[in-house]
Amino acid sequence: MKIAVIGTGGVGRVLAAALTGLGHEVVIGTRSVESTLASTDPDVFGNPPYAQWQQDHQDIALLPFAEAGAFGEVVVNAANGANALAALEAVGAENLAGKVLLDVALPLDLSQGMPPTLTVANTDSLGEQIQRAFPEAKVVKSLNSVAAPVMVDPSRVPGEHDLFVAGDDEDAKQVVRSLLEGFGWPDGSIVDLGGITGARGAEMYARLYFTLADVLGTFDVNIKVVRGK
Amino acid sequence: MKIAVIGTGGVGRVLAAALTGLGHEVVIGTRSVESTLASTDPDVFGNPPYAQWQQDHQDIALLPFAEAGAFGEVVVNAANGANALAALEAVGAENLAGKVLLDVALPLDLSQGMPPTLTVANTDSLGEQIQRAFPEAKVVKSLNSVAAPVMVDPSRVPGEHDLFVAGDDEDAKQVVRSLLEGFGWPDGSIVDLGGITGARGAEMYARLYFTLADVLGTFDVNIKVVRGK
Repeated sequence: MKIAVIGTGGVGRVLAAALTGLGHEVVIGTRSVESTLASTDPDVFGNPPYAQWQQDHQDIALLPFAEAGAFGEVVVNAANGANALAALEAVGAENLAGKVLLDVALPLDLSQGMPPTLTVANTDSLGEQIQRAFPEAKVVKSLNSVAAPVMVDPSRVPGEHDLFVAGDDEDAKQVVRSLLEGFGWPDGSIVDLGGITGARGAEMYARLYFTLADVLGTFDVNIKVVRGK
Repeated sequence: MKIAVIGTGGVGRVLAAALTGLGHEVVIGTRSVESTLASTDPDVFGNPPYAQWQQDHQDIALLPFAEAGAFGEVVVNAANGANALAALEAVGAENLAGKVLLDVALPLDLSQGMPPTLTVANTDSLGEQIQRAFPEAKVVKSLNSVAAPVMVDPSRVPGEHDLFVAGDDEDAKQVVRSLLEGFGWPDGSIVDLGGITGARGAEMYARLYFTLADVLGTFDVNIKVVRGK
């Protein structure tokens, strides 16, 4: 499958590399190919410069947002949450229309340090904002509840634990479930939160997630949903 | 132990009955004993009138807020989240000073139906508000992540699943852990989220909780925290 990953940060890179490893044709979209390749400093999360990463991933093309969007049959939003809407505007509504748009981003405000607050929460969510901004895209919120390395390798967290999907289009959720299965998430570990408003719960869980990561001393942490009879 | 439960709703009643069953001396606090006993209609959650419930729980005295607060060695905030600060003001700072104040409330706004939004979230929490309003109380946030019947009977949800505690006072958290153990929560199921700011994650999880309850069709739902090595 042709997949465009929007965002050159740690999450986008991890997803792009894993999807490539699974046999997909993957490109990464960026605002400016030139600037992204020219950067020589690690980003705020300590990821090495993109150009350095690219040397080990030469099969993953770096393209301007719109070209990446046009290439992808599935588009993955892995942009920084605060920049996601602007990045997707640059990808272009016409390049998102009718496509599965897998939104893995969290709308984090890290300006006050850890744990972060959210730039949108409670009465709205990033997933809902994206669906409203691109009504012809089939937005599916998923993967945002775990750290990037766990997204593509659930075995980093032992035993059973779950992921969430939320979105208005059932077929799109099926496409995403297949991708998740490729990463190693068994079908029984995927909890369907219903329509895209379900993104709100999945995103607001972030505060608990970052608190757990802090007190447990690892980002390899997740939750399992347990229900009564 | 002498325990004052603040709030005459379903959560307060379930906790008061369970604590009494465990051998504690329990009273319930209300704004007006007369009005509470005069009510003949079920409340918005369908709980029967208090007077009817009291017939089956005659060992649990109903007292005005301040008298209940004066009685309790531990005070449990089980008031409706939106009313909690006002209720605790009526209990009186002098009746909370130096005591463990177990806050189980969620700041729910149910005016738009289910799932509810929160009246405070993201940059603050009810637990933090209460600790700020009553700096001499030892506030511990806990139990708010599960439905009342599960609070006092974790076996309603099969297998392993977890509760959270958050609070600035370690001794107070130990007192709460003992109460939780009485309800059947094994020590290994209690995840300490650190200081009272940890209440934020525990409260914001509510949106995911209510979404899960909706899609799974039961309020007997909880989560287990799973961590990597």
